[in-house]
Amino acid sequence: MTSRLTEINVDCADPARLADFWCAALGYAVLDATDDLVEIGPRRGSDAELLEAVRRGPVAPSLFFALVPEGKTVKNRLHLDLSPIDGTQADEVARLEQLGARPADVGQTGEESWVVMADPEGNEFCVLRSLATGEFEV
Amino acid sequence: MTSRLTEINVDCADPARLADFWCAALGYAVLDATDDLVEIGPRRGSDAELLEAVRRGPVAPSLFFALVPEGKTVKNRLHLDLSPIDGTQADEVARLEQLGARPADVGQTGEESWVVMADPEGNEFCVLRSLATGEFEV
Repeated sequence: MTSRLTEINVDCADPARLADFWCAALGYAVLDATDDLVEIGPRRGSDAELLEAVRRGPVAPSLFFALVPEGKTVKNRLHLDLSPIDGTQADEVARLEQLGARPADVGQTGEESWVVMADPEGNEFCVLRSLATGEFEV
Repeated sequence: MTSRLTEINVDCADPARLADFWCAALGYAVLDATDDLVEIGPRRGSDAELLEAVRRGPVAPSLFFALVPEGKTVKNRLHLDLSPIDGTQADEVARLEQLGARPADVGQTGEESWVVMADPEGNEFCVLRSLATGEFEV
């Protein structure tokens, strides 16, 4: 028996706003939305097509943004790492700042190959070296 | 420009132990390991093949388990949701308990369609209805 990772849930104060940010960051679309829960992801067709896909192998998970009453209090124990696929790492960091992200300090030295940022609700994430440029050693 | 979600990072006290649990949970393999950082994921070939894959579209991210000095203090702001692909939801919950997970209480009513659990370091995750049985309405 096994399971697939099909969803990542993010507790938040403003599901629509955070979904907008992450749609723009990852090129995702809103798949379903209520006032307190928004799902975004790659468009993957019907439930039957999802079932077929997960039987073939692991898939790209949807992201769910769920309204919760409590705020963020500590550095997140889980965080997402993004790989730019066109343009440089610096280009992507600048684009994400335009979308509402900001630099974050989690104690990094500044010598790392990744850039630490936070989304509009302060959720830390990293921008890795670009897969599309010589920054990334293939 | 866009980025792909290629990695999920989990801060932890025992990277090897947590990697073992999640490998068994998801059918993943250890892709890289040091004392303080273990990467697991679906086997995806060379870096060049990863680059080709992310150019085609979103991919299943690797999971990184990174040693950190601080412990878990609050409910995680991000959590993973798993979809059983063979067997029932109850079968999968029992299997995950055998692997070291345990039931978790995050205030759920018990009426939800998902089961809330925690991994061996207390990271909350949910087991959704099985995709393989009549529990899931295709």
